[in-house]
Amino acid sequence: MTTARPLSPTDRSTIRRGGRRARTDRAELHAVLDAGLIGHLGVLLGGGPVVLPTGYGRRGETLYLHGSTGAASLRAASEGLPVCFTVTHLDGIVYARSAFHHSVNYRCAVVHGTARLVTDDDERLLGLETLTEHLAPGSWSATRLPDRKELAATVVLALDLTEASVKVRTGPPGDDERDLRSAPGREQVWAGVLPLRTLVGEPEPCPLLPADVPVPARVRERRVSSGV
Amino acid sequence: MTTARPLSPTDRSTIRRGGRRARTDRAELHAVLDAGLIGHLGVLLGGGPVVLPTGYGRRGETLYLHGSTGAASLRAASEGLPVCFTVTHLDGIVYARSAFHHSVNYRCAVVHGTARLVTDDDERLLGLETLTEHLAPGSWSATRLPDRKELAATVVLALDLTEASVKVRTGPPGDDERDLRSAPGREQVWAGVLPLRTLVGEPEPCPLLPADVPVPARVRERRVSSGV
Repeated sequence: MTTARPLSPTDRSTIRRGGRRARTDRAELHAVLDAGLIGHLGVLLGGGPVVLPTGYGRRGETLYLHGSTGAASLRAASEGLPVCFTVTHLDGIVYARSAFHHSVNYRCAVVHGTARLVTDDDERLLGLETLTEHLAPGSWSATRLPDRKELAATVVLALDLTEASVKVRTGPPGDDERDLRSAPGREQVWAGVLPLRTLVGEPEPCPLLPADVPVPARVRERRVSSGV
Repeated sequence: MTTARPLSPTDRSTIRRGGRRARTDRAELHAVLDAGLIGHLGVLLGGGPVVLPTGYGRRGETLYLHGSTGAASLRAASEGLPVCFTVTHLDGIVYARSAFHHSVNYRCAVVHGTARLVTDDDERLLGLETLTEHLAPGSWSATRLPDRKELAATVVLALDLTEASVKVRTGPPGDDERDLRSAPGREQVWAGVLPLRTLVGEPEPCPLLPADVPVPARVRERRVSSGV
């Protein structure tokens, strides 16, 4: 199965810095992508890079992205040019004994490829279902589905996950040996990690909603597994 | 003062989609940047965009970025080519009565420009202080400062905030009038917002730290104002 296939070692997806932080298992790529809610899409526009937050959803080895037909970045992404899509979770602030070794704990997936404009109606709906269910599980079957006009206003892109890399940092600071002891006349510097996580708050009903409509389980029980 | 100067309306920093979500006050740009911990830097590398999570810090109208001299993306960013730096906070999942109107509440700042490689030693230190204090306030004066070797291994870039845009979505779903009533034979669909926020967990001391070193106030009282 595809999850056993290692991540591709192409030139642009090879991690050169901090190689010990690289992950090569496709299951880890899926885990990082599945835990996120938005990613950052990089496209070429007017000769330079543009990076915009973008919703997504994964189905097997395909990442679906979507947006308005009026969005210049999505139009650019659908024109057969290379794109880059990155999902990052920030898991903690790493306090070190030196300024230099301050860092963050994170999980990051970077996908390179050429996005494919989805034109087949069935796949467009499948892509939108994947996106909606990724953001709000259960919503696709509970809400009104897109009509012709809404579909016409939406660009759906597919990005293959073949060429991707995953980088993860966990654990305490990597201080130098020389910094582990107190300097003469100075107190020992605290070092460690301040963990961060994403908390789901209380659902806030739409003001136009009748007061007797209960919060459904799909909302009440929604968990977000990590940072964005 | 600069905060009264409106955000620049250049071609690439003009928000075309969802104009009602655009913010034009420079103070809002500063607020979005200051509330974040990492951003996503987009550079051109090998003919395509590369988007990587990057630490930063703001000083006035300058954003400082840094990284290893071995990082190809930072080398590319320092070569006078256009870059894009984006900071996004995810504030909530917006549940609508239709799949189409599902959305997220967010704050997003996008900065366009050409990064300047900082070569002056004093400004390099200032940039690193700005970055360290942004991530971990109080750490610059509490920890060992970078030595010559560490400085030589670090690239510091400066990005001017002149050309930037800010986009914010808040509030309930923007459902169609036709979806506000129940469909015949169906229950009313719940609609509203599931707020997200970043929670700081309990500090985790480095295993090499003596047990009697207390957690300093700069760590214990660290607040993270929002998502990343």
